Amino acid sequence: MIAEKMKGLVKNNSVIRQMFEEGKKMAQEFGAENVYDFSLGNPNVSAPEAVRENAIRLLKEESSSDIHGYMANAGYPEVRKAIADNLNLRFNTNFDEGNIMMATGAAGALNCALKAIINPGDEVVTFAPYFVEYKNYVANFDGVLVVTEPDKNTFQPQLSDFEKNVGPKTKAVIINNPNNPTGVIYTEDTIKKIADILYKKQEEYGSQIYIISDEPYRELVYTDTKVPFITNYYKNTLVGYSFSKSMSLPGERIGYLVVPSECDDFPDLFNAVVIANRVMGFVNAPSLFQKVIAGCLEEKADIAYYAKNRDLIYDSLVSYGYNCVKPEGAFYLWIKSPVENEKEFVAECKKEHILVVPGSSFSYGGYVRLSYCVSYETIKNSLPGFKKVAERYGLK
Amino acid sequence: MIAEKMKGLVKNNSVIRQMFEEGKKMAQEFGAENVYDFSLGNPNVSAPEAVRENAIRLLKEESSSDIHGYMANAGYPEVRKAIADNLNLRFNTNFDEGNIMMATGAAGALNCALKAIINPGDEVVTFAPYFVEYKNYVANFDGVLVVTEPDKNTFQPQLSDFEKNVGPKTKAVIINNPNNPTGVIYTEDTIKKIADILYKKQEEYGSQIYIISDEPYRELVYTDTKVPFITNYYKNTLVGYSFSKSMSLPGERIGYLVVPSECDDFPDLFNAVVIANRVMGFVNAPSLFQKVIAGCLEEKADIAYYAKNRDLIYDSLVSYGYNCVKPEGAFYLWIKSPVENEKEFVAECKKEHILVVPGSSFSYGGYVRLSYCVSYETIKNSLPGFKKVAERYGLK
Repeated sequence: MIAEKMKGLVKNNSVIRQMFEEGKKMAQEFGAENVYDFSLGNPNVSAPEAVRENAIRLLKEESSSDIHGYMANAGYPEVRKAIADNLNLRFNTNFDEGNIMMATGAAGALNCALKAIINPGDEVVTFAPYFVEYKNYVANFDGVLVVTEPDKNTFQPQLSDFEKNVGPKTKAVIINNPNNPTGVIYTEDTIKKIADILYKKQEEYGSQIYIISDEPYRELVYTDTKVPFITNYYKNTLVGYSFSKSMSLPGERIGYLVVPSECDDFPDLFNAVVIANRVMGFVNAPSLFQKVIAGCLEEKADIAYYAKNRDLIYDSLVSYGYNCVKPEGAFYLWIKSPVENEKEFVAECKKEHILVVPGSSFSYGGYVRLSYCVSYETIKNSLPGFKKVAERYGLK
Repeated sequence: MIAEKMKGLVKNNSVIRQMFEEGKKMAQEFGAENVYDFSLGNPNVSAPEAVRENAIRLLKEESSSDIHGYMANAGYPEVRKAIADNLNLRFNTNFDEGNIMMATGAAGALNCALKAIINPGDEVVTFAPYFVEYKNYVANFDGVLVVTEPDKNTFQPQLSDFEKNVGPKTKAVIINNPNNPTGVIYTEDTIKKIADILYKKQEEYGSQIYIISDEPYRELVYTDTKVPFITNYYKNTLVGYSFSKSMSLPGERIGYLVVPSECDDFPDLFNAVVIANRVMGFVNAPSLFQKVIAGCLEEKADIAYYAKNRDLIYDSLVSYGYNCVKPEGAFYLWIKSPVENEKEFVAECKKEHILVVPGSSFSYGGYVRLSYCVSYETIKNSLPGFKKVAERYGLK
């Protein structure tokens, strides 16, 4: 008999993951070239060549115990130092290795952060539409997710709604910037206003409210819009980062958590996230890939590839009459469904062997998410299908 | 302000991990060759050469997305199939890939298993002395750890005490075989008796009780004693395995969980452990190392190395008058403290730059644990110190 908390999860297993597995089956049935799977954020661009070179060099030159052995639960000090230095250069921050914990991807980083601070019943505010796992992550610690509505045109957060949502039980705010699933970047102005509200609320309630900034898409930006580094705007900010998207390493589960010394209750907070890493069973971020990424922090995946994809899919869908949010970052396109129940639209797309994810999976119906981290050909070959569906709905 | 549950953990941070970090500091102060750090199970033996060769071959020959991309949360099907086949050959079982979930080490596997089945207040029985993290793992899901006393001579479980401990609230039993910290192997007779008790109790209470078998030391055996594969003795058995010790890859966090089809509530149970893997933030076991280990399942680290260490440390300490349990497996020596409070003994050892872990860290005072997965020289050079301490206590 499985645990009560798991029953709902087993029943409503992740739609995104189900689509991923269904896409694989459809590829077997119809041929991979005839299925246009836009369901998962699984990068099509290769990892930078430096990743391969570094990995092979480490495997050849370093001793087994130096690259595969245990290290401190927070990670190799020299890796953490390299990341701190890199962040300091780019964001004018002042971190050292004592502020960085290597983590098992951003998902691991976020769970460590939440485990460290959330008491049962504490509220965690986030912004719709949001990555579906936030709800599960918060539920892992019996916290309660509180959702802020977006502006229906820009998909920036509705700050008046946010202000109402932050109450005496609020312990954390999860921000995902650039945003999955909308591709929107929350502007510096938005971040400043969020920080102002939180400073005011902390004082009002005599509480500590931490921003947990989930930033796997930080490097994937196609415009001049700046992605604010939130520790520079708000003191109690933890940053979860992953190399999954920026270096195309999602399977390797490598990322980090930044805990600035300015946070309230540092160093207890830092100790708590590292202990959380240990007791939840992560123990440490995978060892070889800690060293691999430390040797190529300047590298990133080929953004131009995604930029080209973005232009093709956005321009084409708009020309067919679809209403889309123009993405500034990440590799997702947020498409307004031509019918109120977007699951009907998803089903219509599937008839054309096109897989997209219903917005209800991000707690925001009426839209669908398309991941354009696929091959250019996949996008090109999917266009007739999208056009047919548009015509069926009489979009133009 | 950190979470209430974390406060105790931060205050009493793992003694073992603290020693590991202290050992590194002492090595800097006195020179690594003058510090005898027996605190952590961090293998000194190199990973098999096939690990390096496989990893380099995969990095050179396979596409980036095939080795670093997302796969199903349970892991690559072909890797899971290879593991199932290997187990079937060795243990006469009947698994396929649908019974194997790749996990982030045994720690990840155990947490997924517990998340899948434990409701708050459920009891999980284990056997003293036990790996200290079991308490934390069970607490992650608000379960209650119930501890069974060992026979004070053989350190096999006291089965009469076990029988008393299994009640209507018992949901799981964690068995660690070969055992950390004692090096004892629970015999086939012991396992059969445990299975009999659990079958009886399940019927008595109309409940489901799962054995979670934690087996990172399965391959490290120095005698002819058989380590029973528990799925062959008890239907509701999940097996957590790690390549950390058998292939000297503790930093890589690679292991698996076996969920036999015969388990009650399979396939819900299998779905639940895989969803647990996802929602706790592991997402999947590290991708490259899934493929690396699948290519060398026949390999294991050099057991003869540990056997030689074991003979030297055991024979020497016994000759100095120490009372030790002769280890049959794993790479730990369980030493009776010459004084009741073993922390005094630990302090005396430290004066000789010898680091061992107090038994109270395994909820069993009066003993200390020594990890002999170090270099032969470390053991040899530590012996004069052990002798001095023995003389101070007048052991001979």
